[in-house]
Amino acid sequence: MLRARGIYQATLMQMTPEVGWPTCQLTMMGKAWGSGPRNLSGYSSEKWDLALSGLMARRIVFVTGNAKKVEEFVAILGKSFPYEVESRKVDLPEYQGEISDICINKCKEAAKIVKGPVLIEDTCLCFNALKGLPGPYIKWFLDRLGPEGLHKMLTGWEDKSAYAICTFAFSPGGENDEVLLFQGKTEGSIVSPRGTREFGWDPCFLPVGYDKTYAELPKEEK
Amino acid sequence: MLRARGIYQATLMQMTPEVGWPTCQLTMMGKAWGSGPRNLSGYSSEKWDLALSGLMARRIVFVTGNAKKVEEFVAILGKSFPYEVESRKVDLPEYQGEISDICINKCKEAAKIVKGPVLIEDTCLCFNALKGLPGPYIKWFLDRLGPEGLHKMLTGWEDKSAYAICTFAFSPGGENDEVLLFQGKTEGSIVSPRGTREFGWDPCFLPVGYDKTYAELPKEEK
Repeated sequence: MLRARGIYQATLMQMTPEVGWPTCQLTMMGKAWGSGPRNLSGYSSEKWDLALSGLMARRIVFVTGNAKKVEEFVAILGKSFPYEVESRKVDLPEYQGEISDICINKCKEAAKIVKGPVLIEDTCLCFNALKGLPGPYIKWFLDRLGPEGLHKMLTGWEDKSAYAICTFAFSPGGENDEVLLFQGKTEGSIVSPRGTREFGWDPCFLPVGYDKTYAELPKEEK
Repeated sequence: MLRARGIYQATLMQMTPEVGWPTCQLTMMGKAWGSGPRNLSGYSSEKWDLALSGLMARRIVFVTGNAKKVEEFVAILGKSFPYEVESRKVDLPEYQGEISDICINKCKEAAKIVKGPVLIEDTCLCFNALKGLPGPYIKWFLDRLGPEGLHKMLTGWEDKSAYAICTFAFSPGGENDEVLLFQGKTEGSIVSPRGTREFGWDPCFLPVGYDKTYAELPKEEK
């Protein structure tokens, strides 16, 4: 168990069925901010302190193509957050592999370009019947097949359960700095699409404990 | 239409229904070697000549984890092939994206490491119902679901047609050298797995014009 502070605390979140993406992480970051110690699996307190002590800059670059994410991020963190957060669109390579490796490598590439504290984010949708796939490749499946196609891919399986994993990766920006990962998970299932088509796979994702898909839920509830 | 020579000619191939992977490309490379002009779509003759003139080395590194591929490659090219081909296992990043971009970027990374003429290869299995997916991500789907799972993914669609795309990417090795791509395609369909389980998705791939899957066909026919 480690005490989370500053940006670390802010990016630390648990994605829960009560909250959805993109609001979920930010809400939970807001909740985590100011709260007590957290378990950061895979990171020893030494590594953690090392990363913290290396952070001299007062500005963090959030690499994303979606400036709205940063706006929300900043709004939720509030005025007491001791860092400026700047949104920047940077072309980063998307890797194949395990979710954590993908995020670590992407964050390292971002740090090389930004040369300072940098944050990246990645959300995966994983089907249990497909042993966690499409996972990191969900955007390609969504782009080409739409929410209908995602649901149709599971026709051959009875198990329609799925989970969304949201990962934040943070690097203090140095070449040899350790990348810190913060991950949240929402359990749910894949259903025939319902609701508005505004956001990605929302219409086909039914969070556990709800009878409405993300696309049917009011934004406040998501 | 461009005249293909040397390694270019050797890596140039058309994957046809008569031949399968891994033999197909090599056979076709063998056939292409010594044959006439070929159409290399996407490459102007100027770029082509530039790449050719830059190739001073007599040794080409084929980056692959499978030394057998290189053995076969060399055997088929025969004694008249004017380059030594060396197999080398190099950890290369696997990118997400369009097949050609993935191969170009992977080859560029290989060239940075090898610092000389380098060849990489990538084979994708694309389902028409899934608009070309899993495509470059096929290895993850095969690893986790096996050939049964690949077939099962298409349960919701009547269209079981698929195609295998094999891409070779070659770089003369210089930092600014253009990467050349050679691509072959085999049309077929995805069936319930039959035959030996020796090689990847072979048991569920039925090439057009055949009543046997790749796993059921004798090696000579593949």
